[in-house]
Amino acid sequence: MTDERVQLGQGAGGELMQELLHGVLIPRIRRKTSEPPGIGLSADLLDDSASIRDLAFTIDGHTIWPLEFPGGDIGSLSVCGTVNDLAVVGAVPEALALSMVIEEGLSMDLLERISASIGRTSETAGVRVITGDTKVVEQGGVKGLITSTAGIGWRHPDLSTCIALSDPVGNNRPKGQSWLRDDAVRPGDSIILTGSVGDHGISLLSFREGYGFDTDLVSDVAPLVQLLGTSIKKGGLSSAKDLTRGGLSNGLNEWARKSNCSILVDETEIPLKGPVISACDMLGMDPFEIGNEGKAIIAVAEGMVDEVLKVVRSDPLGKDAMIIGRAMEGKPRVILETSIGGKRIMDPPYGDPVPRIC
Amino acid sequence: MTDERVQLGQGAGGELMQELLHGVLIPRIRRKTSEPPGIGLSADLLDDSASIRDLAFTIDGHTIWPLEFPGGDIGSLSVCGTVNDLAVVGAVPEALALSMVIEEGLSMDLLERISASIGRTSETAGVRVITGDTKVVEQGGVKGLITSTAGIGWRHPDLSTCIALSDPVGNNRPKGQSWLRDDAVRPGDSIILTGSVGDHGISLLSFREGYGFDTDLVSDVAPLVQLLGTSIKKGGLSSAKDLTRGGLSNGLNEWARKSNCSILVDETEIPLKGPVISACDMLGMDPFEIGNEGKAIIAVAEGMVDEVLKVVRSDPLGKDAMIIGRAMEGKPRVILETSIGGKRIMDPPYGDPVPRIC
Repeated sequence: MTDERVQLGQGAGGELMQELLHGVLIPRIRRKTSEPPGIGLSADLLDDSASIRDLAFTIDGHTIWPLEFPGGDIGSLSVCGTVNDLAVVGAVPEALALSMVIEEGLSMDLLERISASIGRTSETAGVRVITGDTKVVEQGGVKGLITSTAGIGWRHPDLSTCIALSDPVGNNRPKGQSWLRDDAVRPGDSIILTGSVGDHGISLLSFREGYGFDTDLVSDVAPLVQLLGTSIKKGGLSSAKDLTRGGLSNGLNEWARKSNCSILVDETEIPLKGPVISACDMLGMDPFEIGNEGKAIIAVAEGMVDEVLKVVRSDPLGKDAMIIGRAMEGKPRVILETSIGGKRIMDPPYGDPVPRIC
Repeated sequence: MTDERVQLGQGAGGELMQELLHGVLIPRIRRKTSEPPGIGLSADLLDDSASIRDLAFTIDGHTIWPLEFPGGDIGSLSVCGTVNDLAVVGAVPEALALSMVIEEGLSMDLLERISASIGRTSETAGVRVITGDTKVVEQGGVKGLITSTAGIGWRHPDLSTCIALSDPVGNNRPKGQSWLRDDAVRPGDSIILTGSVGDHGISLLSFREGYGFDTDLVSDVAPLVQLLGTSIKKGGLSSAKDLTRGGLSNGLNEWARKSNCSILVDETEIPLKGPVISACDMLGMDPFEIGNEGKAIIAVAEGMVDEVLKVVRSDPLGKDAMIIGRAMEGKPRVILETSIGGKRIMDPPYGDPVPRIC
């Protein structure tokens, strides 16, 4: 018996959260020491989705405040968070299950707008909400509305070919790899970033706190299903990851750690919008640790990267995509070549600098 | 623009909730007028789970307070709510996805106990939590902990035979029925109730409010996977339904409405525990409207009901099972033959008399 208590930062996607997951939750929730090291996405991988044979399965909870913000709302966020988690492992999202916990007294108009946004975003993403659950709690029980969205999707029909193309000699992949896994980045892979980072977190923070530097900046919340689908069809992908809590820094560091390689990133190649740069300067925040909701990193075999980049850029959501770096043999860490010519380690974020951005 | 606001009773599983679902949420979330009337579990059926080919998919949110109560906790509730929704449509639950929204400052010991309960209950139910999401919100953002648990399961291998056995002449079922659906109860079917009703709601209410009549009464929260599985193996089932929010009354009325038949129930056959009867007398509550978490009703073709009852009673969770009534041609309503010899309509509950029991 201790009087230890859960801390806010333990839910923020950084190092602190790893402690909560591995120290408290996972060992108790999953009693068996785990399944054999398979070729799928086992729970132990803590990848964006888990898999059972040809099916990928994932869930995401959303506690954002305010419920509507420039460029999106909790509804679009709920759909995109889940379909993106499916798309980045190489699944074609098919159906969603939606759990809503609503605060008594929530405006019915607002609930209608959010519901319509869920409908619109699902249609864009090519999925259907097929089942759900609704609870209403007393005032103060939740802040307006909390959603949890689970999703299922089937392995993309071209995924095996895509992975085979990433490794023509056939000795550079986890044996029998059947999904795009976080542990499958290989030395030599190039890293594509699909667009500018920090837009969602900074626009939300600015809107919420009234900083006023948000004139043109809106959340990037968007479903990456189409973009990932056409990239997989082109082939040569080793891995993909959407950049949410903890931002680019968290995504790259998870890759380095799980794939056991170094990742070298050229800072000057990372797309950043003006308002994000100014806001981060003013607030002393690192734009690479800010959360996004419509951006991904994609690791592609060197011989295929130009073709994949072309495909990514042909998608409206990937028009600003850049090759930002590459994976190398070496210690599992992310090395940033800075704009002034030096190098520094890009440490994984400890907590999220912007609380509750998703 | 109106200033209409969400009411507490709209999340309670009764008539009010139907208005919220059909008037506000569903038409907006599901833009297409719906899929063709299939043989599966379409979203339009609002059944306990939805289906895609051989896969059933469901989600349940849990906002119970207190987080631990006699006989269970939010962890066991989360697992049972979801696996039971899968089991009653005829699926064998395989995997769960767990979303937790934790309040900053929650005791780590309590979180550990709840996590361990999730682990234990999943093991008993034969499922694994394979993916999840964890958020931590500021104090006051949620009350302790809110969970949403999604589940997937595959069609029980004996389900087709089971359904065929329920209708030997082959003209009494929805054509090609492939799951146990709420709209598949047929005149002539007998109704099995797997045990006493009201235990969960009354024990929780008593514990929470300190009424003190709860000495021996504990929640009935339990996974019905085994019980339903062996019943399906025996065969002859038309439909099954777990009794949660709105209790027995809600379950029977949903059947009558969706299957378009009358259901005649003999009150004297409904198992009720002494403390539930006394509590309901004292508080002026209807025990048939109180929520449960480990009870189901099963509609079985007349010729098979004795055999199925035997199988149900051989399961520890079904030892008190009774045949409580039967379905008949007639208006979609539930008729209760009372203990004093009269008859009355058992109306569907309007809201839940015990707020937040699941």
